[in-house]
Amino acid sequence: MKSLLFQLILASFVLSNFDNNVNAGHTSVFVRKEWPSEDIPLDHEVFAVPTGHNAPQQVHITQGDYDGKAVIISWVTPDEPGSSKVQYGTLKGKYEFTAEGKMTNYTFYKYNSGYIHHVLVDGLEVTIFTWEYDTKFYYKIGTGDSAREFWFQTPPKIGPDVPYKFGIIGDLGQTYNSLSTLEHYMQSGAQTVLFVGDLSYADRYQYNDVGIRWDSWGRFVEKSTAYHPWIWSAGNHEIEYMPYMDEVVPFKSYLQRYPTPHLSCKSSSPMWYAIRRASAHIIVLSSYSPFVKYTPQYEWLSEELMKVDREKTPWLIVLMHMPIYNSNEAHFMEGESMRAVFEEWFVHHKVDVIFAGHVHAYERSYRISNIRYNVSSGERYPVPDKSAPVYITVGDGGNQEGLAGRFLDPQPEYSAFREASYGHSTLEIQNRTHAFYHWNRNDDGKKVATDSFVLHNQYWSSNLRRRKLKKHHLSSVLKRIASY
Amino acid sequence: MKSLLFQLILASFVLSNFDNNVNAGHTSVFVRKEWPSEDIPLDHEVFAVPTGHNAPQQVHITQGDYDGKAVIISWVTPDEPGSSKVQYGTLKGKYEFTAEGKMTNYTFYKYNSGYIHHVLVDGLEVTIFTWEYDTKFYYKIGTGDSAREFWFQTPPKIGPDVPYKFGIIGDLGQTYNSLSTLEHYMQSGAQTVLFVGDLSYADRYQYNDVGIRWDSWGRFVEKSTAYHPWIWSAGNHEIEYMPYMDEVVPFKSYLQRYPTPHLSCKSSSPMWYAIRRASAHIIVLSSYSPFVKYTPQYEWLSEELMKVDREKTPWLIVLMHMPIYNSNEAHFMEGESMRAVFEEWFVHHKVDVIFAGHVHAYERSYRISNIRYNVSSGERYPVPDKSAPVYITVGDGGNQEGLAGRFLDPQPEYSAFREASYGHSTLEIQNRTHAFYHWNRNDDGKKVATDSFVLHNQYWSSNLRRRKLKKHHLSSVLKRIASY
Repeated sequence: MKSLLFQLILASFVLSNFDNNVNAGHTSVFVRKEWPSEDIPLDHEVFAVPTGHNAPQQVHITQGDYDGKAVIISWVTPDEPGSSKVQYGTLKGKYEFTAEGKMTNYTFYKYNSGYIHHVLVDGLEVTIFTWEYDTKFYYKIGTGDSAREFWFQTPPKIGPDVPYKFGIIGDLGQTYNSLSTLEHYMQSGAQTVLFVGDLSYADRYQYNDVGIRWDSWGRFVEKSTAYHPWIWSAGNHEIEYMPYMDEVVPFKSYLQRYPTPHLSCKSSSPMWYAIRRASAHIIVLSSYSPFVKYTPQYEWLSEELMKVDREKTPWLIVLMHMPIYNSNEAHFMEGESMRAVFEEWFVHHKVDVIFAGHVHAYERSYRISNIRYNVSSGERYPVPDKSAPVYITVGDGGNQEGLAGRFLDPQPEYSAFREASYGHSTLEIQNRTHAFYHWNRNDDGKKVATDSFVLHNQYWSSNLRRRKLKKHHLSSVLKRIASY
Repeated sequence: MKSLLFQLILASFVLSNFDNNVNAGHTSVFVRKEWPSEDIPLDHEVFAVPTGHNAPQQVHITQGDYDGKAVIISWVTPDEPGSSKVQYGTLKGKYEFTAEGKMTNYTFYKYNSGYIHHVLVDGLEVTIFTWEYDTKFYYKIGTGDSAREFWFQTPPKIGPDVPYKFGIIGDLGQTYNSLSTLEHYMQSGAQTVLFVGDLSYADRYQYNDVGIRWDSWGRFVEKSTAYHPWIWSAGNHEIEYMPYMDEVVPFKSYLQRYPTPHLSCKSSSPMWYAIRRASAHIIVLSSYSPFVKYTPQYEWLSEELMKVDREKTPWLIVLMHMPIYNSNEAHFMEGESMRAVFEEWFVHHKVDVIFAGHVHAYERSYRISNIRYNVSSGERYPVPDKSAPVYITVGDGGNQEGLAGRFLDPQPEYSAFREASYGHSTLEIQNRTHAFYHWNRNDDGKKVATDSFVLHNQYWSSNLRRRKLKKHHLSSVLKRIASY
């Protein structure tokens, strides 16, 4: 009966929900009193190199397959190749199983990377092992005195009513503000990070310092990334097109360091892919790879959207770096190119929410669409559209470029809430119909109401589906009564 | 005095010019009575393999550097690697000089390509040789009985009043209509082809036939490409994203076969580049590579546009596959993504004309721009703009997909002339101020007025420049008088 009660409590809350009422948007006058927008010095303890010869550092994990039955574990050994083995098991200190991966390294200008290890842990390498959902696994990498131990929690088996809490972080960098965001996220109780691009801001450096700041960032975020999977998408700061030092291959450092499970969803590139986790189908797009009609990303997305099964994973979430709707002066209209190509699909497939970064502020849109825009005739501005996603920009991780404090005035009709402060978001899925969303401003010290709302599932909130759900609830209640 | 007289004759012609008067557009009701839209069978003589063991085939040339002081000569030897040497000289049969290049080959599914040779002829390989402008060179490739001889004409030295005649062809394919277009171009007196993408349509085939139809196309166009440089740009049919046969690397066949001089203009990819030829600065863009802000193509174009010197090369021409303005139902609005990114630059830099393909019909725009389009407010449709380029779609080369016969009705205000017939265009530059443009419908049999106009140079037609030019003319007339 708990879930029925929960529905009733929600019902009253929902009355004031933005989903149903498009009101004038709100521009928060609060501006986060920020730390200086400077990177933390390299000798700071947040970048500390772990003790021991060739000790593994920059440890991070991400989902390793389509459905969460695998994890990719990555790390760097600085001095020599070392081993690409992971030992793991469900008891701390007792590692029954071993997985072995691959080692790679690269150069960037005259910087030589450490030895980068990527290991897929999918439970297939040992016959006695069966993957277990929703289970804490401990793992160990490195050898002897330099060995290090961490843990991760496998996700629950995917299903329509599986609750899960995601954190959303973008444009993080490695300043004191970045640190504040990271720690704030770690206190949020979220289980997995959806990262919307711009990781280290190493490209703000020159020559060998680019590689060095990738390494420092890897150590900086390890206290989260070694334990929680971060679902990666790439931003413009990952491109690293630097002709002056003869480095022109896009995403070179990023692709070496941050693998994604793109093959398991038949993507031809690690830059765009999809995963299913708990009750969510998460699609990661690449703003800076080709996406127009006929390109691989376009063809892949077209097929991936057909594979989405809202009966199994009701929540359809899209990540990209460049926001499609943005009313900040910074990067205004940069999303038009992708909007022109994909917006129609997002509306047609009733995407629940699209998270982006890029703009160093927070913004949330109403459900609007501009799909009737036509260069020759017709409607030419975004209009309310119940089938449209909510667009949320969380580019406020806290990097060295600082905040984007100038919003278009007056606030465009599509913009619901905006504020130029650092922070991160959380999306707490309750069941197939409802999720709690919060934007969490950093370091408030005292409780300040920031942006939050109940997100109604776009598939299960339609009348048809609601009737179906009612029937489903009724029959489950009857079953439970019968079982007494 | 000849040029002054020429100016006077032009003056009367110009009065009715579309540049100055935006009238209602014209939709031609004529539809080219076409050959069946089928590829010519492989055993047809147009695809004949040259006689002799391992004889070079699929010979083609393109400009080899920024300013036309080099040529890239490419060909395929089918049976064995053979030699990558080109012998050449200014007298037929007497080849004083030798250049040597590189050989490559590739696989596509189970197809193994022939041995593909690319040789840069730039006159630097022999100390006794000096590159000569505007000169006919003869060249020989292959050895013994299998040797073959061709010729090419080096371009005139770049300069503001150098006349030159370009042909423009797009979406060619290998049908009887393609053949008609090719032969029609060869009779036009044009000196170089600006090719706007979609070469062979080999991707309409499956498995090994893809490679086979690339080879047949190479032989099909050789009667022009071995003698005239073709300036290549890539279309969607070059992408060849074919996951069902595990071929997912974009542009694989194209990049192996059709090199471009991208390094000489500091482009990081053969997909986008620029050349200067006669009095024209020609910029080639890639519709299906990343082009949004921060991407290499965007950064490169930003710098390349700054390098354009209209005092040296008055004509600024851009090639791309996907048209930015199009009023055909086929591919309508596909150009929006690139329009949103680059249109402002094209207007700011007063590009003279933009040639595209993709739509299998012919269309020409008025000088219009939509740069005031704003997702929040403001003007929202294309308006007359004297600084804007003319957009011309020449996607009517004659490939197997047939014509795109359905235009938007009513004709949008930006559309000046459109007709669904096969053909090609020519741009005959007279001097720094004027060029004659023609669209040439294939095989008319009798004279039918098709689209033609005088293109006024966007830089030299402004009042300021006209005054400067008048002064320049006056002083040169005075000099000539003084020299009597």
